Amino acid sequence: MRIRLYGARILTMGEEQEVFKGEVWVKDHLIERVIRGEYRAEAKDAPGEAFDEQIDCMGNLLMPGFKNCHAHGPMTFLRSFADDLPLQEWLTQKIFPAEAKLREEDIYTLMQLAILEYLKSGITTSFEMYFYPEMMAKAAVDMGYRMVISGTAVGMEKQAVKDSIDSLEQDYRTYHQYHSLVDYRLGFHAEYSCARELLEGVADLSRRYQAPVYMHNSETEKEVAECIDRHGKTPVELMDSLGLFEYGGAGHHMIYTTEADRQILKDKGIYVVTNPSSNVKLASGIAPLKEYVKEGILVAIGTDGPASNNSLNFFKEMYLASTLQKIKYQDAAALPPEAVLTMATVNGAKLLGLDSCDCIAEGKEADLILIDLLKPNMQPLNHLKANLVYSGSIDNVIMTMVAGKIRYVNGTYQVNADPITIYEKANYIIRRIECELTGLC
Amino acid sequence: MRIRLYGARILTMGEEQEVFKGEVWVKDHLIERVIRGEYRAEAKDAPGEAFDEQIDCMGNLLMPGFKNCHAHGPMTFLRSFADDLPLQEWLTQKIFPAEAKLREEDIYTLMQLAILEYLKSGITTSFEMYFYPEMMAKAAVDMGYRMVISGTAVGMEKQAVKDSIDSLEQDYRTYHQYHSLVDYRLGFHAEYSCARELLEGVADLSRRYQAPVYMHNSETEKEVAECIDRHGKTPVELMDSLGLFEYGGAGHHMIYTTEADRQILKDKGIYVVTNPSSNVKLASGIAPLKEYVKEGILVAIGTDGPASNNSLNFFKEMYLASTLQKIKYQDAAALPPEAVLTMATVNGAKLLGLDSCDCIAEGKEADLILIDLLKPNMQPLNHLKANLVYSGSIDNVIMTMVAGKIRYVNGTYQVNADPITIYEKANYIIRRIECELTGLC
Repeated sequence: MRIRLYGARILTMGEEQEVFKGEVWVKDHLIERVIRGEYRAEAKDAPGEAFDEQIDCMGNLLMPGFKNCHAHGPMTFLRSFADDLPLQEWLTQKIFPAEAKLREEDIYTLMQLAILEYLKSGITTSFEMYFYPEMMAKAAVDMGYRMVISGTAVGMEKQAVKDSIDSLEQDYRTYHQYHSLVDYRLGFHAEYSCARELLEGVADLSRRYQAPVYMHNSETEKEVAECIDRHGKTPVELMDSLGLFEYGGAGHHMIYTTEADRQILKDKGIYVVTNPSSNVKLASGIAPLKEYVKEGILVAIGTDGPASNNSLNFFKEMYLASTLQKIKYQDAAALPPEAVLTMATVNGAKLLGLDSCDCIAEGKEADLILIDLLKPNMQPLNHLKANLVYSGSIDNVIMTMVAGKIRYVNGTYQVNADPITIYEKANYIIRRIECELTGLC
Repeated sequence: MRIRLYGARILTMGEEQEVFKGEVWVKDHLIERVIRGEYRAEAKDAPGEAFDEQIDCMGNLLMPGFKNCHAHGPMTFLRSFADDLPLQEWLTQKIFPAEAKLREEDIYTLMQLAILEYLKSGITTSFEMYFYPEMMAKAAVDMGYRMVISGTAVGMEKQAVKDSIDSLEQDYRTYHQYHSLVDYRLGFHAEYSCARELLEGVADLSRRYQAPVYMHNSETEKEVAECIDRHGKTPVELMDSLGLFEYGGAGHHMIYTTEADRQILKDKGIYVVTNPSSNVKLASGIAPLKEYVKEGILVAIGTDGPASNNSLNFFKEMYLASTLQKIKYQDAAALPPEAVLTMATVNGAKLLGLDSCDCIAEGKEADLILIDLLKPNMQPLNHLKANLVYSGSIDNVIMTMVAGKIRYVNGTYQVNADPITIYEKANYIIRRIECELTGLC
């Protein structure tokens, strides 16, 4: 399969972040050629070349898809289910009881619903931390979507710790390099939900498999204070001392870090994944991204789950990633759009070990999106990158391609599944769970 | 002209904020009937009734259009023109020089561009503070859009003050109750840009015409501190002492207010218009909306101009209006979606003197929007109002009706103007101004 995308503006997200006019050829799952040159308004075959499909991009912007580096996609069932509560109360009183009623087969549908939303938002890869990896992997493969799954080791009691470590290793062996579209990473929930022995067990797996580790980290002041009470160390210091940072990885949220923490992150090459809309909505705080960038710590962006966010909208995250820094530091120059776009694409790909998905270049994976510039929110064309971050919307995503296949175009999905059926099933799942929780049916 | 919108979920924004299934009939510019009842899947005529058009809303949500209570629509030409600068530097070094090059006829095109963006965002009315009211009024009338224009009195020197007051009165007499779609309000730019004599002149007009007054107010700490230096009073105290608050009105931004200020706002029934995305992007601060609401001060929402925001996206404003309060007060329960929706519709209409546009009820103006629920970001339907505020997007607006006429539907405008031509003209205007500023052409 060979596709020609011509008449485009192209933002490769290579180092210079230049925007130029040209075209991109896609062969099977890869970018075959990137050609600079003025628009060719007519879809003529290039001499001696045969294409299965030629798409006139009409001057719109072709760029790499966004990498959503922290998500709990199947939590779509809890969107707008329990809002306006602080993190701990929200988790323990609302989220955990509802999650306890989930059945394995529910995860497939709920993950499908999230993938529909990702594709509409220009997200071509997400890093999913949730239960039942088999269901998530199946949804990704069936819909032709790229996914990295994170381990979710969690537990305090001796038996739970042992089971969790065993299951993490089992899943790692099953889903690491599982499919061209699906990979797996070692991960645990957070310091506050895991016994020290569990963290030691994950560190042991990290050493044995020479694998990076991912976790929620330093999301609230309470979390950090309690960790210091328990262990005499901040979460970052504790994890470093246990050997969890020897092969890289990332911490999700990272709102409350000390200077010493940041030195560790920098020395060990640990990424920060920021989730700004979840952090404001749960009143957790604003991560010090400006300092991370200044200190050379790499930052990527995530949506977090749709139960806390409440959407999987990467334009919202990019806007907030930038503008919340301006308000936090009372500095309108903090985190300009170029830095945000690097986080949203290049850094995200590297964090996930997807170096082949980071930018538009020959030989890279064809994970591309087309941004409609012929909408009022993108006009006039003063500064395309600022428009993307400051005025862009999911409404501007007119095409999302994953691994060389168009999965979303002009309001229509090409994902081997019917959206309306997915919506109906998702509504049924949450109604069933509500019935089980209240006993009123 | 008689239109039947059936098979809808309806959020009237009446006091109870109930959502019910039913239909709305529109006759000419008014809502003729609101009928409760299960979906009628087929578009049959109601017995004995004849409709020019019957629209199956397919279970989607019909609600009043949003009221954008502070905007400088024609500043579309400066979208992404000068970002990442603090307010004063941004205004004096970038915005004012570019604005000085505007020609009167530019305003018509630039206002048209903003109206396209408003309609796409579900905004049915905006309150426009900009120069050349004739051009703005003409754009509104030609496109069938509802607009209230604010005076922009401004000046420090004696002659400028006199001219500005004369011109304000002249415009008030011309554009107040100018057209069924266009009204005008007394207004001045801000304390820091107006001599005391100008404020006294506006107060005099307010008394003579018994008319409310609108202005930028308490947007930055610097503004408040300098006003105290100049006048020994905060901006709110000064304006009150000059008699500017005797007939109501509103202050735009209102980020830095004292307890005494808030007592004045409450006593005099002055509204606060919050512009959260502009305030974070310019690093101005977060307005104390939670306190305003607690103290019974009415709040409405604005986008501010597209040069500072950078979009005219009411979903972004609603999300930020709520979530920035959560982060400001470290309180996840601050400003729930119901309060935000009241600000976005009912309060906005009242602030603009458009009591006939506040909600869906028989005899009210048919300023309606239809929200697509069959998109992944709105599923499942756990809590529609939370979905609107926390996960909604301009992508969900599938129809915008102003005064009984559909002006936007499914990606198409019905506004007596061609969007592509408007985009081209807007690009030409900013390129011409850049040339004039740099002298490089």
